[in-house]
Amino acid sequence: MTQSYYEKHRQTLEKAVEASRTREFWSPYPEAPSGKVYGEDAPAAGEAAFQARLNKPMALEMPGIEGEIGAERSPYGFDLGITYPKVDPDTLLTAMEDSLRAWRDAGPETRAGVCLEILHRLNQRSFELAHAVMHTTGQAFPMAFQAGGTHAQDRGLEAVAYAFEAMTRHPGQTHWTKPQGKRDPLEMDKNFHVIPRGLALMIGVSTFPTWNGYPGLFASLATGNPVVVKPHPHTILPLAITVEVCQEVLKEAGFDPWIVSMIADTREAPVTKELALDPRIQVIDFTGSSAFGEWLEQNCHQAQVYTEKAGVNSIVIDSTDNLKAMSQNLAFSLSLYSGQMCTTPQNLFIPRDGIDTDQGHLSFDEVAEALATGVSKFLSDNDRATGVLGAIQAPVTAERIDQARTLGRVVLDSESREHPQFDGARIRTPLILAVDAADENAYQRELFGPISLLIATDSTEDSIQRAKTLARSKGAMTWAVYSTREATLGAMRQAALDAGVSLSENLLGGVFVNQTAAFSDYHGTGANPAANAALCDAAFVANRFRVVQTRRHAA
Amino acid sequence: MTQSYYEKHRQTLEKAVEASRTREFWSPYPEAPSGKVYGEDAPAAGEAAFQARLNKPMALEMPGIEGEIGAERSPYGFDLGITYPKVDPDTLLTAMEDSLRAWRDAGPETRAGVCLEILHRLNQRSFELAHAVMHTTGQAFPMAFQAGGTHAQDRGLEAVAYAFEAMTRHPGQTHWTKPQGKRDPLEMDKNFHVIPRGLALMIGVSTFPTWNGYPGLFASLATGNPVVVKPHPHTILPLAITVEVCQEVLKEAGFDPWIVSMIADTREAPVTKELALDPRIQVIDFTGSSAFGEWLEQNCHQAQVYTEKAGVNSIVIDSTDNLKAMSQNLAFSLSLYSGQMCTTPQNLFIPRDGIDTDQGHLSFDEVAEALATGVSKFLSDNDRATGVLGAIQAPVTAERIDQARTLGRVVLDSESREHPQFDGARIRTPLILAVDAADENAYQRELFGPISLLIATDSTEDSIQRAKTLARSKGAMTWAVYSTREATLGAMRQAALDAGVSLSENLLGGVFVNQTAAFSDYHGTGANPAANAALCDAAFVANRFRVVQTRRHAA
Repeated sequence: MTQSYYEKHRQTLEKAVEASRTREFWSPYPEAPSGKVYGEDAPAAGEAAFQARLNKPMALEMPGIEGEIGAERSPYGFDLGITYPKVDPDTLLTAMEDSLRAWRDAGPETRAGVCLEILHRLNQRSFELAHAVMHTTGQAFPMAFQAGGTHAQDRGLEAVAYAFEAMTRHPGQTHWTKPQGKRDPLEMDKNFHVIPRGLALMIGVSTFPTWNGYPGLFASLATGNPVVVKPHPHTILPLAITVEVCQEVLKEAGFDPWIVSMIADTREAPVTKELALDPRIQVIDFTGSSAFGEWLEQNCHQAQVYTEKAGVNSIVIDSTDNLKAMSQNLAFSLSLYSGQMCTTPQNLFIPRDGIDTDQGHLSFDEVAEALATGVSKFLSDNDRATGVLGAIQAPVTAERIDQARTLGRVVLDSESREHPQFDGARIRTPLILAVDAADENAYQRELFGPISLLIATDSTEDSIQRAKTLARSKGAMTWAVYSTREATLGAMRQAALDAGVSLSENLLGGVFVNQTAAFSDYHGTGANPAANAALCDAAFVANRFRVVQTRRHAA
Repeated sequence: MTQSYYEKHRQTLEKAVEASRTREFWSPYPEAPSGKVYGEDAPAAGEAAFQARLNKPMALEMPGIEGEIGAERSPYGFDLGITYPKVDPDTLLTAMEDSLRAWRDAGPETRAGVCLEILHRLNQRSFELAHAVMHTTGQAFPMAFQAGGTHAQDRGLEAVAYAFEAMTRHPGQTHWTKPQGKRDPLEMDKNFHVIPRGLALMIGVSTFPTWNGYPGLFASLATGNPVVVKPHPHTILPLAITVEVCQEVLKEAGFDPWIVSMIADTREAPVTKELALDPRIQVIDFTGSSAFGEWLEQNCHQAQVYTEKAGVNSIVIDSTDNLKAMSQNLAFSLSLYSGQMCTTPQNLFIPRDGIDTDQGHLSFDEVAEALATGVSKFLSDNDRATGVLGAIQAPVTAERIDQARTLGRVVLDSESREHPQFDGARIRTPLILAVDAADENAYQRELFGPISLLIATDSTEDSIQRAKTLARSKGAMTWAVYSTREATLGAMRQAALDAGVSLSENLLGGVFVNQTAAFSDYHGTGANPAANAALCDAAFVANRFRVVQTRRHAA
């Protein structure tokens, strides 16, 4: 049964490894939220499956269940009413440790097969997952389907591919023959066994529970570590469905289903710190605030800790030969999911003397106006706006927009619009402010949400230097540059290497600075304070397992 | 010039990568300390080169030199009289940061070429290095040549091979084409740049400065991190020669020689903690005490920390079909370098009711006697003893032998012998004690040096359980088992997976539990408290560098 999962998905796994090496485009999970791809009934069936979950308890199979928990509310204005098992962590972790051996001894191929079957079934449930992601994170449906569904599946598969390659780099056994001159050679038989570090903890984030969660979840699971999922209290459902699918496949494959488990908590009674300090937890994956990420890094010495934290993303605008395309591209990037992405650009550095464009030299204010107009036009169609902006996930983000107005001169104010389909949903368009580079307090911190700052600098050189200093001290997930000058692009690339930030150059079409493609683009670098790891590379998987060797004289 | 180093050594590098994957026997650095291999004059020239260094200052090229330092004394009874540059750390680190870019931008091939040229030149100086290792660590000459010379070079090359493979897993650039249905595909050109974490610190150990030091040194250097070597104050010379060779090759290749530098200190005025906390230090490799290793792990949050610390190594003796060969094999393992190896067996668990052997069932005392006789006979030839035992590196180790006598019943007492060639050299033969398993205080801690405990247990099952519990709490670098029963070997293997310790089974010939072969055997696992990393695997190199990506629309 389990071997057949490996055989069933072997080609997909091999292609995933190959794609992660060539870094060419590839995905086995079609991103179009379309009945033509997933079956005519799939969209309706997915929505029905989501609706059927509302206002009910959801079951997961775990030792130590002692109650119910859960109080999610859709950012589109209604309570989900779903409860989840409340678990005694100690009972659960003890059971998971007991289940570790069978999962460890199943070996890399069986584990990879189970992981790929899980991903396959998650893919089949992409519509249901999209509704779950939409109504916890506030992402608009198309984005929830892609970023929350198929692209998250891509990132999960990518992690399995890296893990599988790393675990099978050495042979399971080898014969070792060392010449001894005229004497008989020394001959040894050696075996190499992959063992996991222990139990893994994946701490979910409220905005991208699956996209940011799957890499750690699947990297740990593929390398033999049973995984506890600790979802954000406001965004439980997408990960609960994920755990449900994991348990279903594990059980069918003959393993204890609680090899993937979930410990949900509440904001009032958080359990994450206690869990993260448990000596049985040997791997931690976290996406969220810098404060908590740093606490994990500095206190959980027993575990390998992978964090993605806050950062301040910068764009340097030096010149462009296509002002319109630049403005359109940036309008999308600033609007997408109302700026609630760790990759959303925040600081746009522009020389105070203006820039050269295909429409002649434009002053700083003219560039600001062009960008503001780009955003306004893009969002003037309310249907399109709705499909891009989504809803504000947390009230604090909406409050931040209102507070930020005083930080600079308002170039484009944030609008609060009614959602055409959902009563009570908060839709917010981007706030764009202009500030002077000297006003460092305004822009040298993360302003999470749809808040962008156009920063007037002495020169492009000054812009680059400020972006670099900021990335080194506060971190950055993304950088972009617009310039028609090779020397400027070269200087920006050099700064990107110095600051350890990935860079997009002159994006004018259908690729956006806040989006990365699995198998090709690394998400983050691990080389600046915004994250200590990249999604996904060898470093992300290599420390999740160890090799134990046995050797003996050859028979 | 630098490209030619890569071309010159390319085949060696490719073979090293290949060997680390097949894990079959391979080494490019002949281990025989013989003029037939290295040239008739090499032994004498190497000794003369060592002698010529005595009682002189040694020069290294580093900014910030402000004096001299050094007070090494050979464990064979004479002062080396060599001084080394005393450096201002801040001046040096500042200069090294300035030199980082050129080394980073040289790329993986050039850096690998430089590393292999360094290793090649170190290999050519193996006789000189052997004398330097011998007269700082106390290793006997044959061992100093192999463990301190050629095998250390193997481990350095192995690290370069892993690093090179990891850095070149992705292409330097790729073309990405994403289909868009009926529209034109999205096409992007992407570049992937390897960047180092920053500066690296390699903290040398007194007993195996090169063997334990080269993996970290070369892994960091190959991945672009300039390296500060901080040798143990009693064991500077082998690493100083190493740094000298690194600087020579770096300079010839057109780089600043201080990309590899050395900061020597004294026991009275140690600088390691301050260095290790410097925010510029982003990678730390350490071999030494558990206390200091744990301090590094828990305090140097800015750096990736790789530690090899103390452990308690166990052997489970259940039965044997060749008592004589077992005793001879163990006699060598207990005697080699007077037990001053992190891999030396300390605890030998034996059922109190005795074991089955090819000489019939023997009582615990008879087994103890057989082992003691094996050691005595092996060391009865004083020339052979001298060539195996070497000298005691630190007076505290000799004191520990004397203090340990009270821990149990003396089965074989440690002898203090005169060294036939060196006046004042301390030679100590192993102390073997018998204790009961109930006397946990006696054996549940590391007794570094030639001290072994024969522990009477209820049964082999009890032996395995005790070894496992001990390895999980105190760590272990090595385990061995002797048994004629497949079920017992299976139980021991299972325990090895649970405790995360590598296992040697029924060693009776020319392979010893305390020796590992580069490219084939992993040294340590990283899965128990004795070490947080193995030498060498992908995890040992993957976190030393990051990838920064740039992307743009295809031209």
